Amino acid sequence: MPSKTDKEYKVTVIGGGTGSFTVLTGLKNYADLDLAAIVAMTDDGGSTGSLRDELGVLPPGDIRQCLVALSHADDIWRRLFTYRFTNGGLQGHNFGNLFISALEQITGSFEQAIVLAGEILQTQGQVIPVTLDNVRLVATTSSGKRIIGEHRIDLKTTAIRDIFFAPEPTPNPKALERLLQSDLVVIGPGDIYTSLLPTLQVPGICNALQDARARKVYVCNVMTQPKHTDGFRVIDFVRLLEAKLGKGVFDIVLYNTRKPSASFAKAYASEDEHPVLFHRRDFARSDFTFVGVDLLSQKVPQKVAGDKLSRALVRHDPYKTAHALYRLLKQ
Amino acid sequence: MPSKTDKEYKVTVIGGGTGSFTVLTGLKNYADLDLAAIVAMTDDGGSTGSLRDELGVLPPGDIRQCLVALSHADDIWRRLFTYRFTNGGLQGHNFGNLFISALEQITGSFEQAIVLAGEILQTQGQVIPVTLDNVRLVATTSSGKRIIGEHRIDLKTTAIRDIFFAPEPTPNPKALERLLQSDLVVIGPGDIYTSLLPTLQVPGICNALQDARARKVYVCNVMTQPKHTDGFRVIDFVRLLEAKLGKGVFDIVLYNTRKPSASFAKAYASEDEHPVLFHRRDFARSDFTFVGVDLLSQKVPQKVAGDKLSRALVRHDPYKTAHALYRLLKQ
Repeated sequence: MPSKTDKEYKVTVIGGGTGSFTVLTGLKNYADLDLAAIVAMTDDGGSTGSLRDELGVLPPGDIRQCLVALSHADDIWRRLFTYRFTNGGLQGHNFGNLFISALEQITGSFEQAIVLAGEILQTQGQVIPVTLDNVRLVATTSSGKRIIGEHRIDLKTTAIRDIFFAPEPTPNPKALERLLQSDLVVIGPGDIYTSLLPTLQVPGICNALQDARARKVYVCNVMTQPKHTDGFRVIDFVRLLEAKLGKGVFDIVLYNTRKPSASFAKAYASEDEHPVLFHRRDFARSDFTFVGVDLLSQKVPQKVAGDKLSRALVRHDPYKTAHALYRLLKQ
Repeated sequence: MPSKTDKEYKVTVIGGGTGSFTVLTGLKNYADLDLAAIVAMTDDGGSTGSLRDELGVLPPGDIRQCLVALSHADDIWRRLFTYRFTNGGLQGHNFGNLFISALEQITGSFEQAIVLAGEILQTQGQVIPVTLDNVRLVATTSSGKRIIGEHRIDLKTTAIRDIFFAPEPTPNPKALERLLQSDLVVIGPGDIYTSLLPTLQVPGICNALQDARARKVYVCNVMTQPKHTDGFRVIDFVRLLEAKLGKGVFDIVLYNTRKPSASFAKAYASEDEHPVLFHRRDFARSDFTFVGVDLLSQKVPQKVAGDKLSRALVRHDPYKTAHALYRLLKQ
């Protein structure tokens, strides 16, 4: 763990999934940051979905990713918590998910399970579920149909109009308290409908953000996503979030200015994902502060069998993104 | 962990399974003992059997039981390592087994997996697999048939003539070294054909015991087991082991003198298990030192669904047994 200095800044990342993993991985290298992640609790796909269905536990997947990102433990523990069984009845199950779910079953407390996993992983900071209620995500499509379940919404087969929860969750008081104490809040990057709104739309979260004294930065996506944000420029992401959440939820927009390499763009184009463009004239009519820097990973994404994480990880460079956020904190 | 004194005695328990768990649980309360368990590697039933078949790992079950017995960690970690999933595709899998098997897959080393599990469990001492080879147990029955697999032999549906390994294992050098360094070696208690011989018959183990300067104590079973030791008195257990292993493998026999209560005896009689009797005149013609004390658990065994351990645990009282062994060490 980095050595501590006298002054500590409280930095809180909102979302869950790949975007939070990337940002926390970068921020962990700054010893003077007291880090927290506020994480969506609507994942219901893959290993996490099986555990929810079969054991009745809360979803461990996004929580686990954030714990690993914050870990200063020996590499072997991080590898253990990202290990996936590849054969037999355990196939597809992630060990870290099993760890959290077993502890939840034993202790009867999802929060205690997270604390114990954090002890082994020696995390720099804490991971806070945005709610402790057992909720599912529901989307209404542009044609008025309903899609039930985050993993179905995440398939990106249709345009989304709105998302809501079933049932309506109560916020985790620790999440609200943390937002009010923070010096910097980082929203995103991440899919708007399956990562950001599932956290930000939990009742009380946006009010806490509006009341918070923190600098509040939205980190805009680097690539569009099919059906959800096709053809979006930076300003479109910002307008969509403002339309859904109201004013005052964030004040700074951090966006990428570097054009992807031909090989990078080609790898994503095959997935119908394209670089998020920006026109500076878009920004002139907006109240937000727009900060454009090179945030792009240089690694060309690689498909890894059974691992959704590795491809998505490389859109934002964790260190460039963390450096830009750290500068915004210290300005 | 108990505070250490200047003098440490090296005490090594041989077997694996319930017997070793019981003895180690008792011995752990003595701060001046440097403990080790040398454990059979032929388990192939239940959760362990599935993991062997599906992942190709070495058997974690007996190792895990000994690690838990040696643990000084908070109760929650011991509960985690004995937790069994009760629903869905994970049903019957023990979390501790998954932990050890996942680490074996990641590191490529069963031994390193044991060390890392021991770190979390804060074990007082070490657990040593008797071999690192992937072997199966085979029995020949009194009618000359073969039974392949420890879990089939353990069903106790037929009398056993001999057991052997397929293939023949090489001993773990750490097991041989440990035996030569020990002050006290404890053999058993445990089923002769599925716990004791699967450890003691590994080539090199009996030679090391014969060469060792340690006091070597065989802890005789309290109850007979159907087909395997029907009608056995203490002397019959001793003679059987000597016939299989030769002379000089142990020199002291610790046996129980307390008669089980009617309710205790009744619970076992329904399983066709009966108290192991002794006649002092049997002992007169033997070279061994026989030490008879009350070793019996006062708890009446209870069947727990899906848990083979809890019923078997209560035959020997861990604390009475450890106290008797400690006295033999200090005499």
